[in-house]
Amino acid sequence: MDNQLISELKECYGIVFHDVNLLEQAFTHSSYVNEHRYLKLSDNERLEFLGDAVLELLVSQYLYRNFPELSEGKLTKMRAAIVREDSLSKFAKECHFDQYILLGKGEENSSGRTRPALLCDVFEAFLGALYLDQQLEAVREFVSKIIFPKIDAGAFSHEMDHKTKLQEVLQRKGDVSIEYRLVKEEGPAHDRIFYIEVFLNDALIGTGQGKSKKLAEQDAAERALKQFSEE
Amino acid sequence: MDNQLISELKECYGIVFHDVNLLEQAFTHSSYVNEHRYLKLSDNERLEFLGDAVLELLVSQYLYRNFPELSEGKLTKMRAAIVREDSLSKFAKECHFDQYILLGKGEENSSGRTRPALLCDVFEAFLGALYLDQQLEAVREFVSKIIFPKIDAGAFSHEMDHKTKLQEVLQRKGDVSIEYRLVKEEGPAHDRIFYIEVFLNDALIGTGQGKSKKLAEQDAAERALKQFSEE
Repeated sequence: MDNQLISELKECYGIVFHDVNLLEQAFTHSSYVNEHRYLKLSDNERLEFLGDAVLELLVSQYLYRNFPELSEGKLTKMRAAIVREDSLSKFAKECHFDQYILLGKGEENSSGRTRPALLCDVFEAFLGALYLDQQLEAVREFVSKIIFPKIDAGAFSHEMDHKTKLQEVLQRKGDVSIEYRLVKEEGPAHDRIFYIEVFLNDALIGTGQGKSKKLAEQDAAERALKQFSEE
Repeated sequence: MDNQLISELKECYGIVFHDVNLLEQAFTHSSYVNEHRYLKLSDNERLEFLGDAVLELLVSQYLYRNFPELSEGKLTKMRAAIVREDSLSKFAKECHFDQYILLGKGEENSSGRTRPALLCDVFEAFLGALYLDQQLEAVREFVSKIIFPKIDAGAFSHEMDHKTKLQEVLQRKGDVSIEYRLVKEEGPAHDRIFYIEVFLNDALIGTGQGKSKKLAEQDAAERALKQFSEE
């Protein structure tokens, strides 16, 4: 097993595997197993099967708890955005997992080490191995360093409309009152413009305009959100 | 909350909810919420979102542990067969969950109470509620009464070929040696018949025949399996 991986996991995430074989298996691609049959290794595919389900539960629970206003449909969309290949492969790279994968030569030569599907599988296999080695809470702790902060920062919130998003961002800071007030409307009936102000606990946090009240509210929420993400 | 449900859960499964509201929510269909807006109830859809992920993990882990020879692909197929609507709605009925669903009148009149999708949702929502109320192990205990015995009995093993299935069934009883022996072949080359005997720890457990060794082995395994399921 790569000692650098072992020390990186310990230093960066406080993770020490009891069963180092599980860790090694998580980083073993089938192409490596096929090229080293005499070693009788196991590849990471079954661990990936398990890790996929571990991640799905942890993300589901986090979303369930932290987005109390979101419908099941919106939760499902957001979960899908978080656990999709593209996202997971980025997490894998962020953890430098790409450096430690045991790859066959053919796969290496065809740039397998940078292939999103392969990186995604390693990330899930790692979660599966950690789950078997140390139970659910240890995996939760890990993803709460790697994934949950990105959820909080709104990286997967494009499924939400601005008003919902603003509500979610502000509610995370505690019980709040958010109010949209129509302050002005002007122009002829067929080309009317509405002006909305949005208040957080009676303090103005954004203004917006649009061709309907609804659009103006979305605009105000979007501007208010920008202010909060610049904080 | 329906007291009969509370006592049935306690008597049949030893389950007592700390937060009875969660249990009630799991059995509350959106049609009921819509018809009783003044009660300000929450429907079971968000709990279903969570319970779906809880079930996926528990089934994945069970398959991972109990089918050590199955590939990721076959594990995935088997998991899909277990967690699909058709299966879950049967589990829900078996637990008499259909009797306790709070349904709107429209839904009731259009036979909603027997609709597989609706029963499946209630089953998942119940698992989600139990998870929030009592953590993963409590849900594992419940599904190990309702679902795992059916997996052991081979109810979802149609994805496996007979040889794999026989191996899995026998391995569950401990370390075993399974051997296929060619005992005879006859007929002309273009129409040859092979006869195979399969042995468990040197005891004959099945015979088979076929136009190739492979087919004869599958036949022998299938007959051996019948013998074991008749036990």
